[in-house]
Amino acid sequence: MPRYKLTLEYDGAGLAGFQRQKGQPTVQEHLEDAIENFCGERVEVFCAGRTDAGVHARGQVVHADLPREDDLFKVQRGISQLLFPLPIVVTHAEKVSEEFHARFSATGRRYLYRIINRSARLGLDAGRAWQVPEPLDVSAMRRAAKLLLGTHDFTSFRDSQCQAKSPLKTLDRLEIEQEGEEILVHAAARSFLHHQVRIMVGTLRLVGNGKWTEKDIERALGAKDRSAAGPTAPPDGLYLMEVMYE
Amino acid sequence: MPRYKLTLEYDGAGLAGFQRQKGQPTVQEHLEDAIENFCGERVEVFCAGRTDAGVHARGQVVHADLPREDDLFKVQRGISQLLFPLPIVVTHAEKVSEEFHARFSATGRRYLYRIINRSARLGLDAGRAWQVPEPLDVSAMRRAAKLLLGTHDFTSFRDSQCQAKSPLKTLDRLEIEQEGEEILVHAAARSFLHHQVRIMVGTLRLVGNGKWTEKDIERALGAKDRSAAGPTAPPDGLYLMEVMYE
Repeated sequence: MPRYKLTLEYDGAGLAGFQRQKGQPTVQEHLEDAIENFCGERVEVFCAGRTDAGVHARGQVVHADLPREDDLFKVQRGISQLLFPLPIVVTHAEKVSEEFHARFSATGRRYLYRIINRSARLGLDAGRAWQVPEPLDVSAMRRAAKLLLGTHDFTSFRDSQCQAKSPLKTLDRLEIEQEGEEILVHAAARSFLHHQVRIMVGTLRLVGNGKWTEKDIERALGAKDRSAAGPTAPPDGLYLMEVMYE
Repeated sequence: MPRYKLTLEYDGAGLAGFQRQKGQPTVQEHLEDAIENFCGERVEVFCAGRTDAGVHARGQVVHADLPREDDLFKVQRGISQLLFPLPIVVTHAEKVSEEFHARFSATGRRYLYRIINRSARLGLDAGRAWQVPEPLDVSAMRRAAKLLLGTHDFTSFRDSQCQAKSPLKTLDRLEIEQEGEEILVHAAARSFLHHQVRIMVGTLRLVGNGKWTEKDIERALGAKDRSAAGPTAPPDGLYLMEVMYE
């Protein structure tokens, strides 16, 4: 059975996350249904990053073994059409070797977190960003972000449910961009712990609004205790942008 | 009765445009309902630009005469809350003089038109951009856009229903930006004819995909006939970004 790598875009707002859960609308369930309609067989899909309920993707990657070889354009378009009108789309399809695994072959992941820093609630961006009403000091957030770069024990920045064996991760990028009332947090690493990006963003907010200083970030990192870091930012602002492979 | 200037953001996808129409969900109707709930009186609102069904706004401006003076934050927040959960938000409120008119006092309008240039249908941007499948030559579109700048008789670029007395308009800005698969068209003028931005974008697409040359743009402009220009681009990609005042 030939293996295909599919790149997905989805609006996570109405979805219960990637991973199949009984009776819930998940990306995995919808995608496996569409693939079954496309090729007549039920096959399992494996993703690069199991996004939580409400989290979006511009470049999620999955692999699946289809029962027959098919034209790549037909695979991409056919599965996308069968997903219509769900806000889940296959943007690219590629044939890969049997050794390729969406999760284990990945060498990097890139996420974007969107904050809208204003007092008014969100209209156009409802469900697609985190509205933070108090003015944030982006320069202070940038200085704090630098302390999280590199290899650390990120125990304070992982969900208590996180199943990763080791809390050691190497954060390659944590950059903060400001465009008007929008604050964009770009994060990249080989891999992340469960909720790591959202906890980092929830903690950076505390620096942005002056409740925390850079010293508090160092203290939180050193504590190796989830309760020592800030709250988990909501899923609405998180986008899985890209998964990298060799 | 004190006059207030309100700035609005809305997602136009589920709305029948700004202007009241019997039995239809319009921004005007929803806003007048919220204001009535807020201050106990039905007052009419007047907008800077009557956006069509499906068109979005980041910075629509309206004015309304409220029965009493109120704290600006209370006006902005109170009306926004009464509009919840509609994707219509008052982002700013300001007290203005009796001479202020949202439409007639405006000295400029700025629009953004978003094209997503890819073959896959839209997931995250469904209803919020125009998906154009064939590759567009942005440099050619930029050269063509320059020919539309300045003062022209834009008869070919106005809807046949357009009620403006004169087809003469001065286009101050028509810039095209590319960010990955996204093509952003920025347009600014004192005022626009009905559907002018959408017809300009629909026509620039013909240049982008090679069906038209710059000469065809000049010919269309000179013809002073709606049928000489390209088709009207869909409302989904259009955003009223800002209205300027002295």
